[in-house]
Order: sequence, then structure tokens, then C-alpha cells
Amino acid sequence: MPVETVDRLAEELKAESAYVRAEVDNFFARLLAPTGDSRERLYEAMRHAAIGGGKRLRPLLTIASSRLFAIDPGRALRVGCAIEAIHVYSLIHDDLPCMDDADLRRGKPTVHKAYGEAEAVLAGDSLHALAFDILAHTATHDDPFVRNELVLELARAAGPSGMAGGQMMDLVAEGATLDLPAITRLQQLKTGALIEYAVEAGCIMAKLPAEARRPYRGYARNIGLAFQIADDLIDHSGDEAAAGKPTRKDAHAGKATFVSLLGEDRARQQAGFLVDQAVQHLSSHGSEADLLRSIARFAIERDH
Amino acid sequence: MPVETVDRLAEELKAESAYVRAEVDNFFARLLAPTGDSRERLYEAMRHAAIGGGKRLRPLLTIASSRLFAIDPGRALRVGCAIEAIHVYSLIHDDLPCMDDADLRRGKPTVHKAYGEAEAVLAGDSLHALAFDILAHTATHDDPFVRNELVLELARAAGPSGMAGGQMMDLVAEGATLDLPAITRLQQLKTGALIEYAVEAGCIMAKLPAEARRPYRGYARNIGLAFQIADDLIDHSGDEAAAGKPTRKDAHAGKATFVSLLGEDRARQQAGFLVDQAVQHLSSHGSEADLLRSIARFAIERDH
Repeated sequence: MPVETVDRLAEELKAESAYVRAEVDNFFARLLAPTGDSRERLYEAMRHAAIGGGKRLRPLLTIASSRLFAIDPGRALRVGCAIEAIHVYSLIHDDLPCMDDADLRRGKPTVHKAYGEAEAVLAGDSLHALAFDILAHTATHDDPFVRNELVLELARAAGPSGMAGGQMMDLVAEGATLDLPAITRLQQLKTGALIEYAVEAGCIMAKLPAEARRPYRGYARNIGLAFQIADDLIDHSGDEAAAGKPTRKDAHAGKATFVSLLGEDRARQQAGFLVDQAVQHLSSHGSEADLLRSIARFAIERDH
Repeated sequence: MPVETVDRLAEELKAESAYVRAEVDNFFARLLAPTGDSRERLYEAMRHAAIGGGKRLRPLLTIASSRLFAIDPGRALRVGCAIEAIHVYSLIHDDLPCMDDADLRRGKPTVHKAYGEAEAVLAGDSLHALAFDILAHTATHDDPFVRNELVLELARAAGPSGMAGGQMMDLVAEGATLDLPAITRLQQLKTGALIEYAVEAGCIMAKLPAEARRPYRGYARNIGLAFQIADDLIDHSGDEAAAGKPTRKDAHAGKATFVSLLGEDRARQQAGFLVDQAVQHLSSHGSEADLLRSIARFAIERDH
């Protein structure tokens, strides 16, 4: 690819990304407006976690996959915010003392540090319910079949066959020695399922039959793994400023990661290979897939 | 009402209640079947919480309200189980050390006591997601509009405008002195919203327009309050065997309840009055509403 094309795509990704971050913040600011009653502390805790931080990778992916099929970006954003609500709830609960016991998240105190543990449990639970509230609303899509499928697949991606199941595998993995297939399966559930859903949501909104969604699911699976390797590399580097959270926790916990199993160089190679594979899945598309291509290419080069 | 009628209705309620308890157990046993992988501990924790305990009041209410409109009982049961999944998740999280710190629930160790805190957080989160998985499935209803409305209203009943919001109010209430309107509002969110949904679900499945659902919502609001008063009376009595959990926690925490505000006698009177009001909402119905009437009449006489 010519250097000027790479530069242009990088600039476009930066602009799109900034746009999505602002829109997601606006959406949550409206959704979580002050209540004026004794639930206000709960809403404050949700705003603390949901507004003003994070890469917003999942909403960006939904916007990017929706663009392939010329879906209204406002609707794609609603779906992206529902996914982000699930993601944020999972971070809040993951950070709890009984889970990762983290003090910092996205460069700020975690919810339980800022508001208390009970508040963190309830803020997570509330965002979890709100995700389905957002999806089932008619503003998300005219066709109730589509809204239903969006709900069903998000419930599966978030639940015990997806994210929550992967978190359990992660818990059980502490002290055990996982091999590469086991780590891959764990990651596919823990973070992959939601990333895959974020991409597939565009296909669902476009009413693509299941068969036709395969390349996009393939893209999502590849970048999901690539992102995980990139995260492991950042964690391994120990750069807490870049990570916005404490690093080297996996090493301290004796947990196997892609980096501990493959070594730094091969892990980096593998991430590059996965990105190439991801982009190949989009070969039937023209410039409407550029955003998806850029997300894949630049996301593993990010510093946080 | 003649004594023989009262006896017959009591017998019928007992039989229906036993049937629903068995069917809900069967449903969860199928839904939460062993996974054969490292998520098994999560499923075990969910089975511990979801199978073999509880009154199953919410599924019973959905079956009873569905009967008014001759809705297929198998479908009503699915919806009832989705509601019960939400109820069980809320109990698991409520019992956590950072919330009520309870050791016993339904006469058994709480999930965090039996499996650990992280497992309890994840088991609750998993049941939360499964509730929407159940509702959005085509087996719940043929009409996607109906499935959508079931999802939307459950998300609202469970989220920060419903149950989770009520739990926050309850947290804030510790140490504060609530009056009767504040306690009523707290209860309407914390437990009332889900009970109201359990009754309204029958109306949603029957495609009743919002206006026509009013009497059933009125019934639900009345029995929701009556149940809360009945619970407060059991807690006040201090009978832990009947309650299946530690009692007098509210008194020890200095929390206002209906009983502390009204006194035992007036609270009992008020519960009876609410039940009479609830039953009046059903006056346009014949024997198809007997189950709803019996639930209202006998539930405040239960010992647990």
C-alpha cells in the first residue's frame, strides 16, 4: 500500500474514532441523566464508568460493519452503545475486589474505589439491563425480527456461552497451565464473543442470512484474537501509562497468555498474520470496507 | 366465601404451585445442564441457586395471568422462568458480602458461601443474560413484536428504573429515616416492578393494548405491596425456620419497614386491604381468574 494511502486511512480512522467516542459519550449522557431521587448515586456511578473513556472499539466496529450495508449510522450507534453498555458492565464487575481487585480503569479510579462495592455491583447490573432496553426499543430498528435477533445474539454473546463463560474459564485458569488452544478458546468467549457480535450486528441489521455472514464473523474472530495479543503485549511491556491500568497482572498471577506461550516476537508476528487474514475476508468489498480494514490494521499498532 | 370454596381454592393453589415449582426446576435443569468444560463450576453455581428452592411466585403469576387469556401454559412458563432467572440473579448479588452479606438463602448456603464471591458475581451476571436469551427465542412466542415487548419491559423492570434502582434506594436508606411514601416507592421499584411485569407478561402475550392492562397492573401493584408487608411481618417475627434466611436484619440495620412504621396490627390490616383491592381488579373475570385470586388471598397467609 502506498505511504500516502496508509496515512490517509490512518487519518480517517482517527477522525471516525473521535466521532464515535463523542457520540457514545453523548448517548450515555442522555441515557444516564440525573434522576433527582435517591437513585442518583447509582446513575453517577454508571456515568463515571460509561462516559469519557475507552477506545469504544465495539461501537466503532458496529458502525464500520453497518457501513458495508448502508445502514443508518444513528441506528448502528444505538446498537454499538448497547454493546458498550455490556462491555462497561463487565469491566465494572471484573474490577471488583473479588475478581481482579483493580484500582484503576481507563486512567480513573474503578467504580468500587470511587463509589463502593455495592454500588459497583448495582451499576454493572443496571448497565447490563439497559443494553437490552436500548436494543428492544423501536428506535433501534423498524423490524421487530431484527430487534429480536439483536437481543438474542447479544444475550448469547454476553452470557455463560460467551463473555461470562469466558470469565469463568479465566478464573479457573489461575494456577493452571493452559496451552494455546485452551487460551484461544478462553479468549474467544471472554472478549471474542462480544467483538464478533459487534461486527455481526451490522449483518443482522442488514437482514443478511446466516450463511452470508461468515466472512464478517471470520474477520471478527481474527481481529478479536489480534487485539488480545496486542493487549497481552502491552501488559507484558509493563507500560501502565499506555495501558491506563496496572500491567503485568497476568505474569504476577502466573497466568498463561499468548505472549508467555509464544514469546514476544512470535506473538507480534501472529497478530500481524491474523490482521492479514481478517482483511482478506473483506475482499469482495470496495471502499465501503475501508473503515473495517483500518480498524484491523491500526488497532494492533495502538499504544492503548 | 363458603368454607368449602376456600378449602377448594387453597387445594388448587397448592397443586398449581407444586406443578410450577417442578416445571421451573425442570426448565433450569435443562437450561443449565453440565457443560463438560471449565465453565462447569459456573453452571454448578447457577444450578445451586436456580433449582430446588423458592416459592416461584413470579412464574406462578405469569401462568395465572396467561390463563385469563388462554395463552399456552408452556409459553407462559418460559416467560416465568426468564423472570425467575432475573429474580435469582438479584438474590445472588443481594447476598454478596458487599450487599446484605447473607450466609443462607432458601435454607441453603448462599452462592458465594458455597462457590466463592467471584463465582457468585458471574453466576448472577449469567442468569441475567440468560433471561433475555429465553425471552427472545421463537419458542417464547410466534410474534416478534410480542417477544420484543417482553424483552423491553423486562429490561425496564430489572434495570435502574426498576429493581436495580430500588436496590440502590434501599442502600441509600440505611441510616436514613424513610416515611411511608418513600418506603412504598422503594418497594415498588425493588420488588414491585418485577411482580408487576410477571402479571403484565400475560397481557403482553395476549396482545392486550396498554389501556386494557390497567386492572392487571393494579392487581399486581396491590399484591406486590401486600407481599412486602407479609415479608416484613415474617422478618419482624424473627422465625428463621419459616423465613429460610436470617431475620430481623432490617431492625438491626435500623431500616424503616412497613411494620416499623405502621406497627404489627395495622400492617396486617393494610395487607388484607391490599388483597381485597387486588381481587376487585379482577371482577370482570369468572373462574379463569381464580388462580390470581387465590395467589392474592393465600400468599399473605403463607409462613414463608
